[in-house]
Amino acid sequence: MPARFDNTMTSKIINRRDLEFLLYEFIGVGGLIGRDRYAEHSKETFDAAIEAAHRLAEEHFAPHNRKGDDHEPTFDGSTVHIIPEVRAALEAFAASGFIAAAHDYELGGMQLPFTVLQACFAMFQGANVATSSYPLLSMAHANVLRSFGTPEQQHLFLKPMLEGRYFGTMALTEPQAGSSLSDLRSTATLASDGSYRLKGNKIFISAGEHSLSENIVHLVLARIQGAPAGVKGISLFIVPKYRVNPDGSLGEHNDVTLGGLIHKMGWRGTTSTMLNFGEQGNCAGYLVGEPHHGLRYMFHMMNEARVGVGMSAVMLAYGAYLQSLDYARTRVQGRLPSAKNPTQVPVALIEHADVRRMLLAQKACVEGGLALCLHCARLVDETQTAPDPRDREEAHLMLEVLTPIAKSWPSHWSQESISQAIQIYGGYGFTRDYPVEQSYRDNRLNPLHEGTHGIQALDLLGRKVGMQDGAALQLLMREMHRTIRDGCRCASPELAANAGALADAVTLLLETTRNLLCAADRGERDLALANASVYLEMTGHIVIAWIWLRQALVALEKLPQAQGESRDFYQGKLQACAYFFRWELPRTKHQNQLLNDMDRTCFEMEDRWY
Amino acid sequence: MPARFDNTMTSKIINRRDLEFLLYEFIGVGGLIGRDRYAEHSKETFDAAIEAAHRLAEEHFAPHNRKGDDHEPTFDGSTVHIIPEVRAALEAFAASGFIAAAHDYELGGMQLPFTVLQACFAMFQGANVATSSYPLLSMAHANVLRSFGTPEQQHLFLKPMLEGRYFGTMALTEPQAGSSLSDLRSTATLASDGSYRLKGNKIFISAGEHSLSENIVHLVLARIQGAPAGVKGISLFIVPKYRVNPDGSLGEHNDVTLGGLIHKMGWRGTTSTMLNFGEQGNCAGYLVGEPHHGLRYMFHMMNEARVGVGMSAVMLAYGAYLQSLDYARTRVQGRLPSAKNPTQVPVALIEHADVRRMLLAQKACVEGGLALCLHCARLVDETQTAPDPRDREEAHLMLEVLTPIAKSWPSHWSQESISQAIQIYGGYGFTRDYPVEQSYRDNRLNPLHEGTHGIQALDLLGRKVGMQDGAALQLLMREMHRTIRDGCRCASPELAANAGALADAVTLLLETTRNLLCAADRGERDLALANASVYLEMTGHIVIAWIWLRQALVALEKLPQAQGESRDFYQGKLQACAYFFRWELPRTKHQNQLLNDMDRTCFEMEDRWY
Repeated sequence: MPARFDNTMTSKIINRRDLEFLLYEFIGVGGLIGRDRYAEHSKETFDAAIEAAHRLAEEHFAPHNRKGDDHEPTFDGSTVHIIPEVRAALEAFAASGFIAAAHDYELGGMQLPFTVLQACFAMFQGANVATSSYPLLSMAHANVLRSFGTPEQQHLFLKPMLEGRYFGTMALTEPQAGSSLSDLRSTATLASDGSYRLKGNKIFISAGEHSLSENIVHLVLARIQGAPAGVKGISLFIVPKYRVNPDGSLGEHNDVTLGGLIHKMGWRGTTSTMLNFGEQGNCAGYLVGEPHHGLRYMFHMMNEARVGVGMSAVMLAYGAYLQSLDYARTRVQGRLPSAKNPTQVPVALIEHADVRRMLLAQKACVEGGLALCLHCARLVDETQTAPDPRDREEAHLMLEVLTPIAKSWPSHWSQESISQAIQIYGGYGFTRDYPVEQSYRDNRLNPLHEGTHGIQALDLLGRKVGMQDGAALQLLMREMHRTIRDGCRCASPELAANAGALADAVTLLLETTRNLLCAADRGERDLALANASVYLEMTGHIVIAWIWLRQALVALEKLPQAQGESRDFYQGKLQACAYFFRWELPRTKHQNQLLNDMDRTCFEMEDRWY
Repeated sequence: MPARFDNTMTSKIINRRDLEFLLYEFIGVGGLIGRDRYAEHSKETFDAAIEAAHRLAEEHFAPHNRKGDDHEPTFDGSTVHIIPEVRAALEAFAASGFIAAAHDYELGGMQLPFTVLQACFAMFQGANVATSSYPLLSMAHANVLRSFGTPEQQHLFLKPMLEGRYFGTMALTEPQAGSSLSDLRSTATLASDGSYRLKGNKIFISAGEHSLSENIVHLVLARIQGAPAGVKGISLFIVPKYRVNPDGSLGEHNDVTLGGLIHKMGWRGTTSTMLNFGEQGNCAGYLVGEPHHGLRYMFHMMNEARVGVGMSAVMLAYGAYLQSLDYARTRVQGRLPSAKNPTQVPVALIEHADVRRMLLAQKACVEGGLALCLHCARLVDETQTAPDPRDREEAHLMLEVLTPIAKSWPSHWSQESISQAIQIYGGYGFTRDYPVEQSYRDNRLNPLHEGTHGIQALDLLGRKVGMQDGAALQLLMREMHRTIRDGCRCASPELAANAGALADAVTLLLETTRNLLCAADRGERDLALANASVYLEMTGHIVIAWIWLRQALVALEKLPQAQGESRDFYQGKLQACAYFFRWELPRTKHQNQLLNDMDRTCFEMEDRWY
């Protein structure tokens, strides 16, 4: 076993053997190495980055995860106070070079593939999701500036962000509008110097105010005076907390004020703020790109951002899984139903069938979710560096249809998974002396932010599966059928049967999709989309079944040569696949029935009947 | 509409119209009125008690629900500090007479039926589950003393408890044993005065230390020196915090010390303690009943206690349902899929089909769960006051088989239900400015305490359905078939179809039960019980389907004469029933398949494969 796996058994962040499997045996990240952009990379540089991230996460992020929850940020009327460990962790993070890691060498980056960066970043999300939010937002912000900022904007704002001196935010939501970006009211008025003056209120702005960095730069959605109504009249602005002089020195305060901190159930270590822009009429904003195209710029990075949410959900549940597994192995309690003699010694919790069930369900959830998110990250790399432009386009389409699933499936099922971890701990799991209750509170945000579960459902059924005459869905089907063919031909009768079950599920999915899209086209759009959440959940389960079958086929192939722990690892993959096909995939039959019937029970429920 | 329903629309605890329906139209609590014990009662006295409880809960319990969560009890090394509102609420509760309400007039009670008391108590659980725990524990404790205490014990401990001067606890769990009562180690040694000296440590003792009452009386499970191993060597002791002199005055401190407070994810307002008994060798305990029969005495009240847990889960979710319903009606956001013109005014959240789905799912959960818990409460009354002893015995058997379901089904599904309430609030639901996140944290305890979900599953499949040659299950089947016959004969084709679906589910359940019990008998006990949790969940869904069909049949009968709001109410019952049969009951098919196959996937998963 190579030395870098020494922490496999002790780390409570991730099973590094699983990550190795997913990166190199499952999604084949090694295939990126030959590409021009990654010419200086190799498996060794990828692994070194992952190892550095893992160590940094364990040393600087994990230790204050509970403390950050116990001591959430406070505001004394002038300053936001955050426990000092956060600053120390972020300084170490910046020093490690991860902020700019995916960027060009000339920008101080490492030209690391997005997939590898995502795997690195997962360590921080697993160690301390709240503290990891600060760099996550800055990195997403930096990507927008990199793609759409002018050279001057990049010089003034992107450069210090990649150096870790400025932090970034995304300021979309307004109190009255919630998820409905169409109803944003913040305004921008052209000033004589060519910049704009912003005015408006934003809510739920993570990392919106703190003293962790020299400056905070907000990406703000607002309407230029006279813009069209709805989402087609929204522009994107760079709005710093302190203005920045042409030489890069800080100027005056830019009239961005803290309306208050928001106190949350979990994810407490990240400041969540209400921000007031331009109360004194003196808030300068700098237009990004063209007027009225702001949503496009913001959503350009949305796939990555949403896959990142899915990844955070996976990692919260992954940690809870490993913690409860460790507890189940070491805690001795009770006897088997067949051996109730009280003078016999009790057994470890893991000996109880119900505990094994909860552990296997967790394993299927977190390893399946991680595989999906890494698969999507690989697609991001394909969109950027695939040699053939048609492959880039295909990867983009696949990513479009998979993103709502990669965001919502882990967000939803991780909550179940963490709940099972709590259940394994028994009463102790409910106490704040053990880590799983915090993971449960932290993850509950994931089905809400970056587009709620219901918004993802409408995105999938209302937009993605019908886009370009169903091209994205067709592509996904093609990939699934490739796996199904491999499964039917393989040496395992069980996996061949699973391939058949997946084929059946895919057939139903296609038929149901066609029926729903036809109904929407013939004027029953509200009814056709009424059960979109069920559609999202069904499609999610089918996609994860596909992901598990692919993992199992790799394991089946490797098993004959594998020895010892490696053999056990592949056996575990096969058993988790068996679990998913026997216990989970069958749920989709009834979901499909409801959808294909266009069930009206909820749609026709009247307000006054509640 | 009678005046007592004035709060139907404004109360966020319960829909009083629903409670009225369940008590009088569904379980027929009016049928108790003719019985000797309740000779002085009438619908008016029942309603007055419920109204008093509702008002008291809203005035004295609800207002500090959040504050009690924000300011959990603290221990300064000598005293436990609790926010003063708790004492005020408990004084008002004691003054109202609810503690002794079910007891005899001669004990200062009201001889209120258990069902009505349970309905009253539900108000306090819904308003503030943490504060309601103090009287709940005292009342359960008092029931044990009432049934098994000597006259002297009743005089010294029961009387002041019924007066609200002493509070009680139940001290079962020990740190090393957890759910495994068989492994309890606390000891009791006979002293020269005929009492015992206790020694041992207990954990998770709710209300274990505070200054809210003159004295705290613990019911402690311990082993008398030389007792048999396992649960057959456990005795029950009364162990006061302060000894009590024969004249009722308080004596010396009884060597019960606080090892520490336990800090929890939710339910924070209730002190949860580690208690050390007899560290100085001077902790006096008074044996209840016979030696070695302690578990029987403690479990005598277990059905009521477990139904009470189910009720607390129902009420946490009921409140979240009403709050999210109110929010969905008043919050205006977004437009329908068919009307995306941004110049049109947005609609209320409740106009969105997905929001109506989440509200209807909640309604089906909380009204179904409340109906089941009240049905069980009615069975408790039957065991105590049915004129025919055979009816008492039947009620007892029914209660035996329904209790694990009434405890676990609401505990599990309320968590889903509250999660949907959070989802309706969107990002606001995750903040501590709204009540639903606290309900979510509070209820997460319910699948853990008073026997975890897995323990309930083993109780149901491993004990209850096979007891007395399946007599309890047979009784339940008989009752279900009565409803099925009514459904098949009714005027509604949909309800008749539902009756058929229920009959099919019941047939599968019986067959599966028989197969599992046979397998257990022929030596495959561990395998037969391996998927007991699935059995519990399947049986729970079938029972709730039965409960919904019964409700719907009542609604169907009343609908033709109903007008206005009453008509809407019955329509809502029919729609919720439709939801449960179309969306929920079909889940049981796959569960039944797993069980009938005696699926080995989890059972055979090996430790080293994780």
